[in-house]
Amino acid sequence: MQIAEPLQIAIDELSKLPTIGKKTAQRLAMYLLKSDKSEVENLTRALGDLKSKIRFCRSCFNLSVEELCDVCRNPKRDHGIICVVEEASDVIAIEKTNEYNGLYHVLGGVLSPLSGTSAESLKIKELVKRLDTGETKEVILALNPDTEGETTSLYLARLIKPLGVKVSRIARGIPVGGDLEFTDEATIGRAVISRNAI
Amino acid sequence: MQIAEPLQIAIDELSKLPTIGKKTAQRLAMYLLKSDKSEVENLTRALGDLKSKIRFCRSCFNLSVEELCDVCRNPKRDHGIICVVEEASDVIAIEKTNEYNGLYHVLGGVLSPLSGTSAESLKIKELVKRLDTGETKEVILALNPDTEGETTSLYLARLIKPLGVKVSRIARGIPVGGDLEFTDEATIGRAVISRNAI
Repeated sequence: MQIAEPLQIAIDELSKLPTIGKKTAQRLAMYLLKSDKSEVENLTRALGDLKSKIRFCRSCFNLSVEELCDVCRNPKRDHGIICVVEEASDVIAIEKTNEYNGLYHVLGGVLSPLSGTSAESLKIKELVKRLDTGETKEVILALNPDTEGETTSLYLARLIKPLGVKVSRIARGIPVGGDLEFTDEATIGRAVISRNAI
Repeated sequence: MQIAEPLQIAIDELSKLPTIGKKTAQRLAMYLLKSDKSEVENLTRALGDLKSKIRFCRSCFNLSVEELCDVCRNPKRDHGIICVVEEASDVIAIEKTNEYNGLYHVLGGVLSPLSGTSAESLKIKELVKRLDTGETKEVILALNPDTEGETTSLYLARLIKPLGVKVSRIARGIPVGGDLEFTDEATIGRAVISRNAI
């Protein structure tokens, strides 16, 4: 097959990305070939800036342009609450809800003996250090409700409680818009146990 | 919502691409943030090269790095046959089959009064000029078998036949691996009419 080399290279590079196969990569490359030069330049500049301009917040390890991230620098946010999440993408997910006004702490993973993630490779030491200042009144654990997330939550709870800080965990239950009939037993059971007064 | 600006810009730029929505764009951006700097550089360089290094072949308007594309410059290919296609991506599709060894001619579209594509805006004049040399023995029309493709095929056939060049069209019929029961009547009808001796 004879195909222009820069096109083949672009297709190969694009298909390395997650969720993008050979066919989609070819479609994207053909689209970019046809689009304006400025559009392609905007895209490549934006992708380059991702790596060069974004770093980790010194305090919470969220993504940030400055040394401290927008959340940590915002005086309007409640600096007495820290929400612990696994990845920076979880911060975006929680921010989208507009229901939370405290700070974050990005662990960078969860405890997982199988994939070799130990407590030392996560930002747990840094979390404990943040609690040392005495400013924090509550730590909310918002890790994924799978085995590894649960294990990490229990580990953190045992570590933090002795420091005199309240530890909570985001509710597990029936998803909004969900259907009891099609929800698994573990979730329904948890929802019954964690029932709220109305 | 407070999200690092370069990340937001990258997500916005990525979600302008076809088949990529907001969620996929965020996933891609987070992936690139986590990957090596060299990987991101390879991608942005490849996308930049697309626009700067690729141009249209002077003869057949296929994508090319040189003035003449790889197909037109290849002496091993049969220069007596020209396959007319709508877009450069169709050249790739036909090249992948390894069944064709002639040259191509990329029209850059099909006749479409609705979207305002007239014969003048397609590379039809250039095709007729290529046939003037007398080297071409056959023109294969490989346009999409929809209304506009059919119209353009008939238009080209009427234009080329008087020049004494054989004109053919790629076969329409049941797709390989297809099922008669679930094939539409127009396709089955065409397959019956175009039956081959075995």
